[in-house]
Amino acid sequence: MHLEPTAAAKPKVVIIGAGFGGLEAARALRKADAAITVIDRHNHHTFQPLLYQVATATISPADIAWPVRSILRRQENASVMLGIVRGIDTKARVVEADTISLPYDYLVIATGVTHSYFGHEDWQNGAPGLKTLTDATKIRSRVLLSFERAELAKNEDDRKRLLTFVIVGGGPTGVEMAGAIAEIARQTLRFDFRHIDPRAARILLIEAGPRILPAFPEDLSAYAEKSLRKMGVEVMTSTVVTDVKRDHVMLGMRRIDSEAIIWAAGVKASAAANWLGAEADRAGRIKVGADLSVPGHPEIFAVGDTATLATPIPGIAPAAKQMGKYAGEVIAARIAGKTPSQPFVYRHAGDLATIGRKSAVVKLNKLKLTGFTGWLFWSVAHIYFLIGIRNRLMVAMTWLWNYLTYQRGARLITRDDRPE
Amino acid sequence: MHLEPTAAAKPKVVIIGAGFGGLEAARALRKADAAITVIDRHNHHTFQPLLYQVATATISPADIAWPVRSILRRQENASVMLGIVRGIDTKARVVEADTISLPYDYLVIATGVTHSYFGHEDWQNGAPGLKTLTDATKIRSRVLLSFERAELAKNEDDRKRLLTFVIVGGGPTGVEMAGAIAEIARQTLRFDFRHIDPRAARILLIEAGPRILPAFPEDLSAYAEKSLRKMGVEVMTSTVVTDVKRDHVMLGMRRIDSEAIIWAAGVKASAAANWLGAEADRAGRIKVGADLSVPGHPEIFAVGDTATLATPIPGIAPAAKQMGKYAGEVIAARIAGKTPSQPFVYRHAGDLATIGRKSAVVKLNKLKLTGFTGWLFWSVAHIYFLIGIRNRLMVAMTWLWNYLTYQRGARLITRDDRPE
Repeated sequence: MHLEPTAAAKPKVVIIGAGFGGLEAARALRKADAAITVIDRHNHHTFQPLLYQVATATISPADIAWPVRSILRRQENASVMLGIVRGIDTKARVVEADTISLPYDYLVIATGVTHSYFGHEDWQNGAPGLKTLTDATKIRSRVLLSFERAELAKNEDDRKRLLTFVIVGGGPTGVEMAGAIAEIARQTLRFDFRHIDPRAARILLIEAGPRILPAFPEDLSAYAEKSLRKMGVEVMTSTVVTDVKRDHVMLGMRRIDSEAIIWAAGVKASAAANWLGAEADRAGRIKVGADLSVPGHPEIFAVGDTATLATPIPGIAPAAKQMGKYAGEVIAARIAGKTPSQPFVYRHAGDLATIGRKSAVVKLNKLKLTGFTGWLFWSVAHIYFLIGIRNRLMVAMTWLWNYLTYQRGARLITRDDRPE
Repeated sequence: MHLEPTAAAKPKVVIIGAGFGGLEAARALRKADAAITVIDRHNHHTFQPLLYQVATATISPADIAWPVRSILRRQENASVMLGIVRGIDTKARVVEADTISLPYDYLVIATGVTHSYFGHEDWQNGAPGLKTLTDATKIRSRVLLSFERAELAKNEDDRKRLLTFVIVGGGPTGVEMAGAIAEIARQTLRFDFRHIDPRAARILLIEAGPRILPAFPEDLSAYAEKSLRKMGVEVMTSTVVTDVKRDHVMLGMRRIDSEAIIWAAGVKASAAANWLGAEADRAGRIKVGADLSVPGHPEIFAVGDTATLATPIPGIAPAAKQMGKYAGEVIAARIAGKTPSQPFVYRHAGDLATIGRKSAVVKLNKLKLTGFTGWLFWSVAHIYFLIGIRNRLMVAMTWLWNYLTYQRGARLITRDDRPE
């Protein structure tokens, strides 16, 4: 213990959001002589890259979630608050949440994204998106319930509709969802029904652009598409969704009946830009300067999916982490009376997406991996980045078990997730 | 493959409920030349003895749940339906569910129990009970949220109320909940907060009778009470709850402020007796004959918590299993044209309840175990009775991890479980 000035004298840093960006910002400030508060609407950090595995009944919500206050328990200059931020008073420098008002000297906004239906917000009920654990268990229930209800269907039309799964959006999440649902239908449930053959399920992956996985090189996109087709997924590129209802989706004049439509197509930033009255791009991301601060507010930083820079940065976890770390370091430097470091430079490590059992596509600099090698790399990378020994062990074991048995251990339909 | 009569000619057996009793009945019929249908409102069997561990954030819902159709996948004469039974037409011999009508030649009712508030059903909101996974995650959220809200509390009264946990009912569930919440407060959360000391939490276990664990010998009850007191639980015996509200509980003239009140006091049988118009005891359990059939209906059997016999049988998993097995065997014998076996005889294997880390009470015939030995026995027995390798492995590993680190891996507050 060394003598410290009173708590009141310490600069107050508020970090909104305990995702990848917010947590890295807090960690970068661990040695700062500051009073840091991390506020989030959830009590847990969610490892979003594996959300689709919760949605497809492989792992449990707790396997990819960790209490924020547990993550920061040893960082004595940080405290954690549960609350939903309603606004920011930039003049008084106060964050207003439902539970508390938090004055700040420095502010980091790391509030991430939510689904965007490109102006068709009424599509949400028909095609839920996948951003939180609640979303994931809801989609899980919807997918599993479709098979259950098909087993009980009284006619062929109902059965066909209930065995049709539509995934909108051919990015990594869409590809991963389509592959996983194909595996559920073809392998996991194979012997479980008496009146339907789950292998007859139709799985459609719909992408508006000319190819799936547009962030990847063309040959990897083609490889992923071929792999999905082999697994029985109908990949429809250059196909635009024009309407979504609870029981069907329209592709121009074409109607596809389905009660399990999943939205993996678009995201928009949280309301943070509105809180600040700051300039944002079309997706709602705040335009930040080279040091990630908000123009006119050198004390406010936006990181991860909440921010947009002159050079585009992909909306992936490593980018959010780098930005969070950078913002934390700038604040720490200023608190210490030093000149902050160089402008933020994003370093792209690579792109990876898994397609299914023993298959993934990986692009790291000049290295490209596909098939089993890609899948192994993908698996190890994801386990490595999970927080906590327990989660790593549990997920690794679950994957091994799933790999050996084709079974999925989290096939739960919970009452609250039953559809209307 | 041998030649079989057409499916229509086979006797139809309907089993309502995929708990311990219903599943054992289905298994006992595995060689019967019958068409068996198991219908349940959930898609999964729940291992209720460990529900309290879900409610106290140790394990995940999926760890103690297994899809019913997965359990019966290899039993070709059995099919599984998801549906909520609304009534039984005993004349036409049809079970009416929301999703389907099921004709039967033999019927097994294994619908279990729900909470009973002894006529005060309005207490439910203030003091939720613990019978399903949804109940468990709701209680988990309520307990964890209490600590979160205490951290944000603006005055001492609020803080005190939010750090008071009341468990009503001193049976095994109540004892296990009280012990686990004490561990969460004293160990798990110890370093996680900045404004409160979780160790200051007050945990009350309230029992109307003169001692906790009334099914156990007196010395084991006394041991359990002493152990709980050592862990900081206030055990109040001969204390009757006279009112429950969302933020307090009344014990006669005494008021205890708490927003985390848990009901582990009473159960009542499902509506099955009403469906049949059959005679029931005060808890709603159907009075069955020596062969577990309903008087006047030799084709209808009630098992587990749905039934009551001349000699009382405890409402525990082994009893439900024995009854389910017996009913299945009687039906199988009748289908095979044989004379059914002897009257049902319940064999009591013993009683066990865990109190906390390294402590449990076990009573098996003349054998009594306490402390670490009891706890080891309790752990092994519960893992043994879990369904599936995966669940056994996951739960065993989670317990080991919890034992070594004092941490709990499922500290999730999910949005849907947030209180009103």
